[in-house]
Amino acid sequence: MTSIDEMYARDLASQSLDIILDEVLPGQASVHMSVTANMVNGHGIAHGGYVFLLADTAFAYACNSYGPVTLAQSAQVTFLRPVRANDRLAAQAVERTRHGRHGVYDVTVRRTGSGGGDVVVAEFRGHSVVLGNGSLSTVEDT
Amino acid sequence: MTSIDEMYARDLASQSLDIILDEVLPGQASVHMSVTANMVNGHGIAHGGYVFLLADTAFAYACNSYGPVTLAQSAQVTFLRPVRANDRLAAQAVERTRHGRHGVYDVTVRRTGSGGGDVVVAEFRGHSVVLGNGSLSTVEDT
Amino acid sequence: MTSIDEMYARDLASQSLDIILDEVLPGQASVHMSVTANMVNGHGIAHGGYVFLLADTAFAYACNSYGPVTLAQSAQVTFLRPVRANDRLAAQAVERTRHGRHGVYDVTVRRTGSGGGDVVVAEFRGHSVVLGNGSLSTVEDT
Amino acid sequence: MTSIDEMYARDLASQSLDIILDEVLPGQASVHMSVTANMVNGHGIAHGGYVFLLADTAFAYACNSYGPVTLAQSAQVTFLRPVRANDRLAAQAVERTRHGRHGVYDVTVRRTGSGGGDVVVAEFRGHSVVLGNGSLSTVEDT
Repeated sequence: MTSIDEMYARDLASQSLDIILDEVLPGQASVHMSVTANMVNGHGIAHGGYVFLLADTAFAYACNSYGPVTLAQSAQVTFLRPVRANDRLAAQAVERTRHGRHGVYDVTVRRTGSGGGDVVVAEFRGHSVVLGNGSLSTVEDT
Repeated sequence: MTSIDEMYARDLASQSLDIILDEVLPGQASVHMSVTANMVNGHGIAHGGYVFLLADTAFAYACNSYGPVTLAQSAQVTFLRPVRANDRLAAQAVERTRHGRHGVYDVTVRRTGSGGGDVVVAEFRGHSVVLGNGSLSTVEDT
Repeated sequence: MTSIDEMYARDLASQSLDIILDEVLPGQASVHMSVTANMVNGHGIAHGGYVFLLADTAFAYACNSYGPVTLAQSAQVTFLRPVRANDRLAAQAVERTRHGRHGVYDVTVRRTGSGGGDVVVAEFRGHSVVLGNGSLSTVEDT
Repeated sequence: MTSIDEMYARDLASQSLDIILDEVLPGQASVHMSVTANMVNGHGIAHGGYVFLLADTAFAYACNSYGPVTLAQSAQVTFLRPVRANDRLAAQAVERTRHGRHGVYDVTVRRTGSGGGDVVVAEFRGHSVVLGNGSLSTVEDT
C-alpha cells in the first residue's frame, strides 16, 4: 500500500517538471503544469510526449488512489490542438470502469489561462493493472 | 518543407533530454536516450511518459522524413517491462502504411546495454497527418 | 446531409443482425441486440468482433447525428468480461469532444437482462471524421 | 490446450460468415472472406465492424496457435479505405512480441482481387492474454 503523499515524494519525474497535484480522490486525479521552452519540438509546438506525460501522471495518481501499487499497462492519446511554450495545461483523470485487477481511466488535457478560457488539447485513455502481490519486485511478471 | 537537421536544431525537447538521432531514412528513424534519475516516478521506475516521449520522437522524425510538415494525430502505447534509472533506451520507428495525408508508424522501444542484450520494453503505434498546406499556422484546423 | 431514418433504412448490416436503435440525439446514440449462436467463437463465447460491431454502430449513429456524412477513422476497444449466446447487449455512445471535422466518442457496452442487472462488458473509443465535401465519392481521399 | 482444428470446428461466428482459414503457424494466421450485401452500412460501404471482425479472427487464431486458451484483451483499428459489397478481404496476423501471458499482434487487412492488386484497407493491433489456468471457467477473473 502506498499513500499518495509518499508516491509524490518519490516522483522526481513530476517534481522536476513542476507538475502540481491539485486533487486526488478515489479513482480521480487533477494535475497541472506549465509548458517550458524545453518542451518544444522541431515544429515549434509542445512535444506530444509532454502532453502525454501530464495525462499519464493524472492517470497514475487516479489509479493508485485506492492504495495497491497499480501500473499503466497501455494508453491511447489523441492530440486535438497544438500547445505552445508558456501555455498552462491541466489534466483531469476519471475512472471509467474497474474489473478485478484492471481499470480504465479517461484523462482530458485542457489549455487553461487568462487568454480565453479552456480548450481541450488532448484526450487520453489509460488501462491499468494492480500488481499481483502489490510488490514492485514482481513487476516483471505482470 | 523541413530538413531533418533543421527540425532537430529547433527541437529543444529532444536536445534537453539528450535524445540522439541515430538514423533517419524515408519512413524510418532510430533514436536513443539514457534514463536519468529525474525520469523516475513514484514507484521507482521510469515514468511511462518518458518512454512514450522517446517513441514519439522516433515517430516524429520518421513521419517528417519526406519533407512536408507532419504531425502526430494519435498514438497508442503498450508498456511491457519496467525501465529503471540509468537504463539506455533505443526506439526504432518504421512506417507501416501511408494513404493520402495519413500514415501509420510502428515504434519498438528496447532496453539495450552491456548487461544482457536487448529486451522490448514498449510497443507504440502512431498515426500521422500531413498539414493541409504544409504550414504550421493552419495546425488549428487539421 | 443524411437523416438517421434514411441511414438506418440502408443499413443492412444492423438490420440483418437485429440491432435496434433505441435513441439518437445530437452526439449520442443507444442501440441493442441479442447475441445469437452464430456470434459465438471457438472458445464458446461471443466473438469480440460482434461486440465491437455493436459499439461501432452506436458510434456511427452518434457521429452522424448532426447530418453531414461522418466516418469512423479509428477505434480502440477493451474487452472486460465475456459475453455468451442469448445475452442481450446494449451500447451507448456519447460524444466526448469535437474539433473541426474530427470527433471523439466513448461507447460503453453492457450486458443487460433479468438475471442480475447491468455489467459493463466492453469500453470503446472511436475517432470520427466528417467527409470533406459531404460526399461518399470522396471517401478515398479522407 | 486447444487445437486450431477444434477451435475452428466450434467457431460458428467464422463459419457463418464464410471466413476461411488460409494458414495458421506459431504466432501467425491468415484468413479471408467476401463482403456480402448484409455487411453494408447506412453509407453504402462495409460496416467497420465486419472489417474489425475479420482482423480479430486472424488475431485470435494467431494468438491461440501455441495451444493455451488465449483471449483478446483489447484492440485498436484504423480504417484506411472504404470496402464495398463483393470485395474480397484478406487479413494477416503476425505476432509482434510476447511477454509472460501477454502478446501483441499486428493484423493488416487487404482488399484483394482481380481488379487491381492488393490495397491495405485497415491496420489492427491486438493485445492478448493467456488464461490463468487455461480454463474458460476462469475468464471472469482475467
